[in-house]
Amino acid sequence: MAELVYPGAIHTRFQHALGAMHLMGQAITTLQSKGLMVMDIEKEAVQIAVLLHDIGHGPFSHVLEYVILDQINHEKISELLMEELDKQFDGRLGLAIKMFNGTYERPFFHQLISSQLDMDRMDYLNRDSFFTGVAEGKVGVDRIIKMLHVVDNQLVVEEKGLLSVENFLNARRLMYWQVYLHKTAICAESMLIRIFERVRFLQQENLPVEIPGCLETFIINKVSLEDFVSDNKYLKSFVLLDDIDIWYAIKKWQFSEDHILSQLSKNLIRRRLFKINIGMDYQSENDTIGYKEKLRLNNIPEDEMKYYFYEGSISNSGYFPKNSNINILTKNRQIIDVSEASDLPTIKALSNIVKKNYLCYANDVYL
Amino acid sequence: MAELVYPGAIHTRFQHALGAMHLMGQAITTLQSKGLMVMDIEKEAVQIAVLLHDIGHGPFSHVLEYVILDQINHEKISELLMEELDKQFDGRLGLAIKMFNGTYERPFFHQLISSQLDMDRMDYLNRDSFFTGVAEGKVGVDRIIKMLHVVDNQLVVEEKGLLSVENFLNARRLMYWQVYLHKTAICAESMLIRIFERVRFLQQENLPVEIPGCLETFIINKVSLEDFVSDNKYLKSFVLLDDIDIWYAIKKWQFSEDHILSQLSKNLIRRRLFKINIGMDYQSENDTIGYKEKLRLNNIPEDEMKYYFYEGSISNSGYFPKNSNINILTKNRQIIDVSEASDLPTIKALSNIVKKNYLCYANDVYL
Amino acid sequence: MAELVYPGAIHTRFQHALGAMHLMGQAITTLQSKGLMVMDIEKEAVQIAVLLHDIGHGPFSHVLEYVILDQINHEKISELLMEELDKQFDGRLGLAIKMFNGTYERPFFHQLISSQLDMDRMDYLNRDSFFTGVAEGKVGVDRIIKMLHVVDNQLVVEEKGLLSVENFLNARRLMYWQVYLHKTAICAESMLIRIFERVRFLQQENLPVEIPGCLETFIINKVSLEDFVSDNKYLKSFVLLDDIDIWYAIKKWQFSEDHILSQLSKNLIRRRLFKINIGMDYQSENDTIGYKEKLRLNNIPEDEMKYYFYEGSISNSGYFPKNSNINILTKNRQIIDVSEASDLPTIKALSNIVKKNYLCYANDVYL
Amino acid sequence: MAELVYPGAIHTRFQHALGAMHLMGQAITTLQSKGLMVMDIEKEAVQIAVLLHDIGHGPFSHVLEYVILDQINHEKISELLMEELDKQFDGRLGLAIKMFNGTYERPFFHQLISSQLDMDRMDYLNRDSFFTGVAEGKVGVDRIIKMLHVVDNQLVVEEKGLLSVENFLNARRLMYWQVYLHKTAICAESMLIRIFERVRFLQQENLPVEIPGCLETFIINKVSLEDFVSDNKYLKSFVLLDDIDIWYAIKKWQFSEDHILSQLSKNLIRRRLFKINIGMDYQSENDTIGYKEKLRLNNIPEDEMKYYFYEGSISNSGYFPKNSNINILTKNRQIIDVSEASDLPTIKALSNIVKKNYLCYANDVYL
Repeated sequence: MAELVYPGAIHTRFQHALGAMHLMGQAITTLQSKGLMVMDIEKEAVQIAVLLHDIGHGPFSHVLEYVILDQINHEKISELLMEELDKQFDGRLGLAIKMFNGTYERPFFHQLISSQLDMDRMDYLNRDSFFTGVAEGKVGVDRIIKMLHVVDNQLVVEEKGLLSVENFLNARRLMYWQVYLHKTAICAESMLIRIFERVRFLQQENLPVEIPGCLETFIINKVSLEDFVSDNKYLKSFVLLDDIDIWYAIKKWQFSEDHILSQLSKNLIRRRLFKINIGMDYQSENDTIGYKEKLRLNNIPEDEMKYYFYEGSISNSGYFPKNSNINILTKNRQIIDVSEASDLPTIKALSNIVKKNYLCYANDVYL
Repeated sequence: MAELVYPGAIHTRFQHALGAMHLMGQAITTLQSKGLMVMDIEKEAVQIAVLLHDIGHGPFSHVLEYVILDQINHEKISELLMEELDKQFDGRLGLAIKMFNGTYERPFFHQLISSQLDMDRMDYLNRDSFFTGVAEGKVGVDRIIKMLHVVDNQLVVEEKGLLSVENFLNARRLMYWQVYLHKTAICAESMLIRIFERVRFLQQENLPVEIPGCLETFIINKVSLEDFVSDNKYLKSFVLLDDIDIWYAIKKWQFSEDHILSQLSKNLIRRRLFKINIGMDYQSENDTIGYKEKLRLNNIPEDEMKYYFYEGSISNSGYFPKNSNINILTKNRQIIDVSEASDLPTIKALSNIVKKNYLCYANDVYL
Repeated sequence: MAELVYPGAIHTRFQHALGAMHLMGQAITTLQSKGLMVMDIEKEAVQIAVLLHDIGHGPFSHVLEYVILDQINHEKISELLMEELDKQFDGRLGLAIKMFNGTYERPFFHQLISSQLDMDRMDYLNRDSFFTGVAEGKVGVDRIIKMLHVVDNQLVVEEKGLLSVENFLNARRLMYWQVYLHKTAICAESMLIRIFERVRFLQQENLPVEIPGCLETFIINKVSLEDFVSDNKYLKSFVLLDDIDIWYAIKKWQFSEDHILSQLSKNLIRRRLFKINIGMDYQSENDTIGYKEKLRLNNIPEDEMKYYFYEGSISNSGYFPKNSNINILTKNRQIIDVSEASDLPTIKALSNIVKKNYLCYANDVYL
Repeated sequence: MAELVYPGAIHTRFQHALGAMHLMGQAITTLQSKGLMVMDIEKEAVQIAVLLHDIGHGPFSHVLEYVILDQINHEKISELLMEELDKQFDGRLGLAIKMFNGTYERPFFHQLISSQLDMDRMDYLNRDSFFTGVAEGKVGVDRIIKMLHVVDNQLVVEEKGLLSVENFLNARRLMYWQVYLHKTAICAESMLIRIFERVRFLQQENLPVEIPGCLETFIINKVSLEDFVSDNKYLKSFVLLDDIDIWYAIKKWQFSEDHILSQLSKNLIRRRLFKINIGMDYQSENDTIGYKEKLRLNNIPEDEMKYYFYEGSISNSGYFPKNSNINILTKNRQIIDVSEASDLPTIKALSNIVKKNYLCYANDVYL
């Protein structure tokens, strides 16, 4: 939804997957040039794994993960799909799957696919920075990759790459504030969630609502991971779904006879977005009372209020020291955590988690 | 001397001056579009001032400022030269000079020329980042300029530009470590300083040394600011000097009959640089004793040791809160210091000054 | 469809429209700086006109123009839509419409919108070159715009911009061969056309085929310009249509009970494209006979052959001297055609039209 | 001297040499990936050869080749220097030298170093286009390199790279007109040549003129290839010379007591350049008479006229079919000349040689 803020940001997950695979090739070549033994079969596997790492994402991943699906992590679905492909390709994805889920005996491969310094982030930060024009997210990927090393099968960064790693962590933190958690994107996502909640309500109450083909399965019930595993039809339906189906449905729903659904759909498509109070601008009590009152004046009944009014919070941190941490290889060959490696005060500051509450509400002009 | 590390970094001060003038034009246009009154004559003056802000730099500015000149700040010489030009142009640079030295009644013009968020830094950071390839130094200049505002004739940044300013301060700090204070550049500059100290010694002892034309004035005595002001011949000689003269002299001195001078000159030209221990690698006492011993074994007498052995320190900080600070204009129209404006912990960390000691010494292979 | 060849080429018409408007602003500013009088209202109008110049394009413009619509030029529909907007905005688009359709008294405005050197081409060539990565299509737009001038209300280019114009014409010619007429794109478009022809056949024969909502109007009959003018419902349906509807329909049709429709749809979506013989590789008689024979062996009956087999031709030229020609302003203030302005032999060569015949046919592996 | 027109164009021959070596590495890797056998020793040799291909260039190569040297091609001196290095490195440059001078048994290596489609041109065109900002000179190097192939040890280009080759030839032709033969660069070079002619005259007439050290050898006599070969001192002096010496001398000569020398030197340094009539603007007879008359009015005596007045011609062509032509490998594996390979009319037009006469003369304002 960041496209509504940054009109250049229409790049696709397919491009990201190709990019991450490309960077993985460079990373492996670099590590080999430093004397690490990597077999051809391993190189192929780690490139397959990163090419497919996001394949489990549905359209508008958050909507599907939390509203349509029953909070299934997309990585679980990626793994299910890789297993499906593994069957079709006679077991040739076995090694890639092990690397992906972290059960392969050489953990650095998994770290290159999924960690705080993985090829996934290397690619999406630069790509998103480029297509949004947010210069602050640009990362010196070439140099970080050149600084990678493997010691005892663990991924490490040479000490002289320390400043580049710091800049990378900083860039990621800034991209979260400027792009991924941009208030306008939050508003639009909020509307999208409300739309699907309304559709499910209508469907459950047997009120008329047209649900285009492959979406229906996921409206009737929130599909759980157990469902996916026990009945193959869910995966089959899931892979048919893409953004096309979602947008087609919303275009349809503009003309729904349900007033709430048509209003939300029409407003989303015409970019008449919710408004938002966030962070220091958000005065919990007061705002809540004031905006609710406004909505009541617009004849929104209490039980429909939830479609027009929404409180939540976002949080962001540059570095999570406890979560698959980044290791630095010092000049005297010791391995220490990045937050300890530096005589600079800034890296530690990046470990703080900053949380912001927000209040999202319909613009009464468009009611 | 960073060119020895980053071979692409051969861009010139002339290009930087044009770039800073260009950005100044954009900044003024932005401020005008926000309703600020700027007269044509003011716009011209501030662009002249920034075009000429570095004109007082001699070749290899540090050498000339501290070794050849008597610690005269280049900005003083810039001002003297502007005054000279002012005479030639019948007083048409008067306003530019006032803006440059901070005596004009609207201080934001001076802040655009020289402050912690001036057009000078905006240009050189991006330019140096580009030509060195150090991605970490890239700054979102377009956006920062769009966020500029003037309140009560003071330059401020709108609150929503806060993250861009933070990124700018970070980028500058990183560029200092990665480029301006790069250890190899320090070594080369160290050699250059030693060369000039030796030349002055030879000249003062009446030992034979050929000093090409316009350099001589500045070898006989360190010229002071008073000299510049009292006798116009110093300025006249100074403007004739450029990198050409320095390099020509060093090329000559390779063949000097003085062994120290020829050795230092030859080694600098052939990129046989001094070595350096810096920061955590630098063990004051031990290193000093060890390396001096090595030099003694190469028959360097005690009184010549200073040409081959040098201790010093570098320091760096992202933001100096007391020094022409950066003001943020909050959404409710208050003006506060950038380090107070944020609910983020990182900006305060940038105010710390980090200092590193180092030891520079001749590589005994080349003695 | 070039996206199938160049995966980066997913940029949108909206981005192009913004880009063309941006360049128009630069062009007008340049012309004003050369002393041309342009009123604010004219500047706004010409920017509106170029912003909206492509608004009449339907999804996959060629399919809609020639298969669904009755060969209506998209510019006619753009004009109808502008008139619609003109009503909504109380006549404020009147001047823009005049400039767009060429009836305004100062023709250079129309030439900036639509001619062989218009802002439309300036934008799309550079944009398409950038997103495809086809370096040959890069055009020195900044310089060409700086070389523009207006004499007697006609757009001209100063003589010293001659080489840039030549390069621009060349770049356009190369982009046609490399991108717009790329053989793989032709194949995919060919399949898309066949799909819609089949859908119309099924609909006309009353055979079962599901046609999603707003598409239906354009399947039942080819809508003509007269229809658009006489009944507003066509325009209303047309603006609801976008790529979403087309792709949603094709996704549906994969599962059609009509074998031809499902096969073509499935193959297009899975990128199992037609094959093609083109230009010097195309041996009219022989190829026709040989490939038809192959298709017969795959049990394609004669009356269905047209869905799997297709002959056509493409043509391309760098410069059309008779068609709104490019005028050069020589140093002695004469105006001559670009092909006469040069002592270079190359520009005349660009006027030749090169035509290539081709044969497109289904890959029998996927039948 | 193009720097006087394009202030960004201060990139160095060293950067070009590194760039050409880099592209050579890519070219060899591409050819290997297509099945060509290249030994490690060959790959190293061809990279050495291209790294050193320009090492024989003196400062301001044309001045030295035609005015100071006796028309020695710089490639001859490159070869002499490689042979010198070969001695120092115990014969390890032998293979590189063979490839460089075309005596190695696999000619495609020489063609990659020096032909109409060599890595030299690939690098300098893109580099010069980038640093001048002349967009027309940008070349799709990545693609051309990917299209290279070797058949019977001859370098060829696959047919589908035809348009890229055409664009490359076009770009080169345009760069000649826009940059290398830019009229302002011709003027400045003309002045430089006149300066050196005057210095030689003064030296030969025993009139006072200071010639800085290593330049003197080349002023006393034009050094010939025989001199270089027979006496090693010439090569030794030659390698000490660089732009520094030339500019230092010209700075000196500004203050020469010879009026002509000081005037030309001062004017060159202050960018008070000659004027020029070129191409269609040049009316041989009339111009010659008119401008000479003007100079006479400024009291230039007849025998000094040659320092202020100069006629010459430049010529340019996109493709020389007879001179190490570019071979295309057609789809049916035939090899034909690029000008025959195409059904496009444009490539033949590129073979025409366009010649322009010009007249260069001192601007009387600065006499």
